[in-house]
This record gives sequence, structure tokens and C-alpha cells, in this order.
Amino acid sequence: MFTLHHQDGGARAGSLVTPHGVIQTPVFMPVGTQATVKAMAPWEMQDLGTQILLGNTYHLYLRPGLEVITPFGGLHDFMGWDGPILTDSGGFQVFSLAKLRKITEEGVHFQSHIDGSPCFLGPETAMEIQQTLNSDIAMVFDECPPYPCEKEYAAKSWDRTLRWARRCRDWCDAQDDLGGRLHFGIVQGSVYPDLRRESAEALVQVGWDGYAIGGVSVGEPQEEMFKAAEYVTPYLPENRPRYCMGLGTPPQMLELVARGIDMFDCVLPTRIARNGTAFTRFGTVSLKNAGNRLSHEPIETGCECPTCRRFTRAYIRHLIKAEEILGLRLVTIHNLHFYLRLLNDARLAIQEDRFEGFRREFVAGYVPSAASR
Amino acid sequence: MFTLHHQDGGARAGSLVTPHGVIQTPVFMPVGTQATVKAMAPWEMQDLGTQILLGNTYHLYLRPGLEVITPFGGLHDFMGWDGPILTDSGGFQVFSLAKLRKITEEGVHFQSHIDGSPCFLGPETAMEIQQTLNSDIAMVFDECPPYPCEKEYAAKSWDRTLRWARRCRDWCDAQDDLGGRLHFGIVQGSVYPDLRRESAEALVQVGWDGYAIGGVSVGEPQEEMFKAAEYVTPYLPENRPRYCMGLGTPPQMLELVARGIDMFDCVLPTRIARNGTAFTRFGTVSLKNAGNRLSHEPIETGCECPTCRRFTRAYIRHLIKAEEILGLRLVTIHNLHFYLRLLNDARLAIQEDRFEGFRREFVAGYVPSAASR
Repeated sequence: MFTLHHQDGGARAGSLVTPHGVIQTPVFMPVGTQATVKAMAPWEMQDLGTQILLGNTYHLYLRPGLEVITPFGGLHDFMGWDGPILTDSGGFQVFSLAKLRKITEEGVHFQSHIDGSPCFLGPETAMEIQQTLNSDIAMVFDECPPYPCEKEYAAKSWDRTLRWARRCRDWCDAQDDLGGRLHFGIVQGSVYPDLRRESAEALVQVGWDGYAIGGVSVGEPQEEMFKAAEYVTPYLPENRPRYCMGLGTPPQMLELVARGIDMFDCVLPTRIARNGTAFTRFGTVSLKNAGNRLSHEPIETGCECPTCRRFTRAYIRHLIKAEEILGLRLVTIHNLHFYLRLLNDARLAIQEDRFEGFRREFVAGYVPSAASR
Repeated sequence: MFTLHHQDGGARAGSLVTPHGVIQTPVFMPVGTQATVKAMAPWEMQDLGTQILLGNTYHLYLRPGLEVITPFGGLHDFMGWDGPILTDSGGFQVFSLAKLRKITEEGVHFQSHIDGSPCFLGPETAMEIQQTLNSDIAMVFDECPPYPCEKEYAAKSWDRTLRWARRCRDWCDAQDDLGGRLHFGIVQGSVYPDLRRESAEALVQVGWDGYAIGGVSVGEPQEEMFKAAEYVTPYLPENRPRYCMGLGTPPQMLELVARGIDMFDCVLPTRIARNGTAFTRFGTVSLKNAGNRLSHEPIETGCECPTCRRFTRAYIRHLIKAEEILGLRLVTIHNLHFYLRLLNDARLAIQEDRFEGFRREFVAGYVPSAASR
């Protein structure tokens, strides 16, 4: 369960007990979509101080499939990671990746993006799959409305998502033993304050171990992302963790920590690494840039990650230009270290009642790339 | 310098002193063409017990170029590997990769396979580049004739290669200080016993720290590969290491150890790993095979590599099917461990006068894939 240890303004430092270990929050959760964090080995994730990994129900259900994972007793043994794992419910991916979706009250019929085979996901199946994956934290099955979204559709979508959430709750309550696994609800409601509030209040009434804010990082302006948290957090219980799904940039995460969010996941650090782009406290840098050709500097001066301790920008640039796998590995290591450290530093700052200064200084020094401004 | 410690039949156990450390032979040398062993980090190479790495003069000369590597004082600091490095001379790649070659007495004019820019490599430039790379073992610049090859062309090519070797020797002799770096000659002569003998005798007269057999593993039948070693070794000094270039399968290496060869390099273990194929003592296995879908076995039972200690075939197959980088990383680790261990085991067997039994048993148990039969 969740314990709130300290509050500094709106920012919170807490800890969350799961079957595979205790997570200190605020926390960044690296994304291991297909039972691996892209380009990384599990022992490397451990060395970086990763507290919890994400897995994707939708992807793992389609490939390798449950008949492969079931005999391992779940995802942990299958992928060689014995720390906590959070799985999403598959809802988001069904709407963003799958083809020929048909949404019914029962759930969603769709075609696999891998081989086109017909598939179905609904509230109960999503819960069952996550039980089979032995997730430490399972998410309810929801519909994530797009941005922009008419209020009428957002309201209708939320009504169904609430009915699905109640069925997820019923499924949980019907189990003999949940094995200590936690289950989080997902607040929707698009950009509409009243829908967001209604969504939060209704979910709290249903009752979950934690609450996620969904429908963010779907293309909305950054201000809408912050507002979504502001609309929702007043109606969430203090003694439950709050998870903002699928974001964000380093400043965005700190702004949301300031607004009382505890948990984050994001593919940015691993995705842009594979294109040769690295995070630094001053913003992102493209290692492909000619300016790095002769540079004997590390990616980030003072960084203590395994990449920066050993390698120069000149070498990493060479590897990326030559399309060598080690190049994207080294940048991935740095970027994950950067994200994990940032949330660790935020936690420390909260514990020492200096988070506001920490946030302000970081955000002021960080120049967002054009894409995230 | 080289010390021959023990001989068991034709097989030899020795040690070779280089500026960056002592190499125990027989030895397998993993290939780091572009200043990285594909998919591997240098600390992983060290953990696998790698004694010496290869670098490719041709590739590194074209990209990143000497102006990038020179300020690092050579390849070691550039790539973060402080053990011994052997570099080829670029001769083989000029003939196999580059476009629009024009061979003159001076050297070879060619176009870069990367950007088409005009380039030149000759005996002296190849020596200079390898000095800049700070190679522990530098190879002479040679022409590697194709297979099949008319005797007339093989003889003419060898004559020029010998003149080039003499110019390499002159270049070495003109240096104030070779810094302990070793220089190896390369025996050519295609499949012709008299040319091979003539080539070996002439090179020995020129005088080198070691002798390589070139022009093998260029598409000839396996028997011709073994014969090339048999034609040559009687004319090579016992107190110099012998290096068979660019091969081979596990049984081929043991057959050549039996014929007095000390050093090997080969891209097979890393290349086929990236296609999901692994070496075992019984032959290669494709991890993509449906038979591995539910397998909780490691790639090779009893193998103590970091992959086999942790992961099942089912997981590795999933990673490869899902095109995850970790999949090819895990197979690369296993395959390199397999090759390195095989030559270590061969050395141990020689030291204990049981190499012939070791070789026979291994070769009998190993079923070559169709491609190498």
C-alpha cells in the first residue's frame, strides 16, 4: 500500500509496497513494451537503479501470447526482471495501434497490428491477462479519447469507461486472492473540468489502490496536460498514488510533481536515444551534429552514468553515424539514467523541503526542443 | 614476442607479448570492424575473457577518419578498450568492398563504399594508418586474390604483394621507434602449393613478428583451406605466431589448430547472431524455430555464458521475432563466449597433451550447417 511520507507544497514523497518490492515516489518507470526495455538488458536496468518497469498488455497478449508466458508464472521470470512491473490494460494501444476496431458495451473487437488476426479485449479479459502476466500493478480497461474531442463524445466515452471500471472492480472482488497485486483506476474526461472531476469522484467511489490520469500526452497543448492534473487531484485521496500516463519531457514531469503526481512512464528517453538524441540538463542534444565530431567531452559533463564515465561524444557520434548498435545502447543508457536520476533528485528535494527551488532552477535551465515547446 | 610453450602433435600452445598485454594462444580474436564488436560494449568483451580485438583499417580510415582518432592517441582510448588490438591492412576490404579499384605498383586507388570519395591505400599508407591507430599488431598491405584464381594471376599478384611487403618492411625499418608494436606478413599464393611455399619462404626472408595465411575463407572448399595451412606451415619459423585470416566454423578452427595455427578471427559468431542463429557443441540452432517457442531450456545446456545463465530459448525467440535489440545482443554474447571458450579449451587440451582426442570428439559431435559442409 501507499504511504505518504512528506509533502512540500503540492509535491509528494511516498512509498508504495508491491509484491516484488517497495517503490519510492516520485518515480520514473521505464517502458518495456515487448518484455524488454528497448536495447537494454535487465541487469543494466537494475544497475541504473530502476525501481519498476512497464509492460504492455496489448503487445504481450498478441506476441508472444499468454500460452508462452503462462508457464513462466508471469512476466518476471519470462524476462528476467524480479522487481515490480506495472502493466497497462491494453486500452490505449487498442485505440492507437490496432486496425478495424469495433467498440461495443462488451469491449473492443480489433485486428492484431502484427498479423491482422481478430482479437478482443474487454474489462474482464484485460484483468485476466494482467493476472496471468502477474503484474504488480494492473490498470483498468478504459477508452482513451483522442485530442481534440467533442464534449459530447468525451462524456459518452467516460460513461462507458466508468461502466468498464465497475466491471473491473467486480472482477477483482470476485477473485479469491489477488496476491497483493495492486489495481489502478484511470481518470478520463478529456479537457473538460467538470468531466474530469466527475470521473475522479466516480472512480474514487468505486475504489482503487491508485489513480491514473489518462487521456494526456495525446497531442494536447502542454497547458492542457497540467490542467488535467489540476482538475483531478483535488478529488483524489491523499493516501493513494497518482500516476500521469505516458509522459513527458523532464520539465513536464517536474511541473506535474509540483501538482501532486507521483508516477510517470514515457518512451521518450529510449525512443529519441535510438535516433542519437540525448537528454541533458540544458535540453536535448543530437549527437549526430558535426560539432560533436572531435569532441572529447561526455554527453553531459558531470553525469555519472556508465556512458558518460567512459565515452566521448566523438566516439558515440561515430557509432551512430556508422549505425552501430552500441551507439544507441550508450545513448539509451544515458537517457534512462537522466530520467531516473531526475525523479530521484525531485524526491530528495521534496524530503528536504526545497522542491520549488529545485523545479524552478531546472525548468529555467532547460531549453525545450522545438517539438515539445 | 612469441614463446612456444608446448606442442601436442601439430597443435601449439604459446604466448605473445604486445604493448597492451600478453595473449595466450591458440586464440580467437573477435572482430570490431568499426571500433566496436557489433552489438557489444567493451566491458562485456572484457567480461567474456576476450584477449585481443580486431579493428579494420579500411573502415576506420574512411569513417570516422584519422583526424578523429589521432587526438585519442589511437583506437584504444577512442573505443574504450585497453587490451591488445590487431588491425588488418585494409587490403582485403579494398578488394572486396570498394568500388572502381585501380591497382598500380604504388598501391590501390578506389572509391569509398560509403560516399564514393576517391581514396588511396598502399603499403606505406597502410603502415602509417595502423601506426596512427596504435595497433598492437599491424598487418602488411597485400592483395588477396579471389577464388578460383588462375595460376598466372596468382603468381603475378603474389610478386606484387611481395614487393609491397618489402616496402612495408622498409617503412618499419625506417621508424625510430615502433613502440613494441608487432608486424605480421601475409602469405598468399591461392591454391598452388609451390606458390604458397615460395610466398612463405620469401616472407620469412623479409622477416616478420608473425605470419598470416591470407587468401583463405574466400569461397574455396574446406579442404583447400586446410591444405593452404599444410603447404605453408613447414616453411614458417616455430618461434613466430601463425594467424589464419577470416575464419572459420568451430570444427575448421580446431582442424587448423591441429595444423599448427595459433590465431583466428571471424565475423561468423556475431553475424549469424544478428539473424538469431546460435552456436552449440552440436552445431548451429536457429532460435526463430517454432520448436523453441515454449522452450525453457537455455541456448546450450551447461553453457555458463551470461545469456544461458539467465534466459530461456522461449524468451530469446520472442525477442528475435519481435525484432528487439536485446535478442541479438543475447545471442551475440553466447556465440562470442562459445568461440572464445572453444579456443581456450583447445589451449588447455594442448597443454595437457590431449588435443587430438579433444579435436576428434568435438568434430564428431558437431553437425555443420548446410552452408559450411
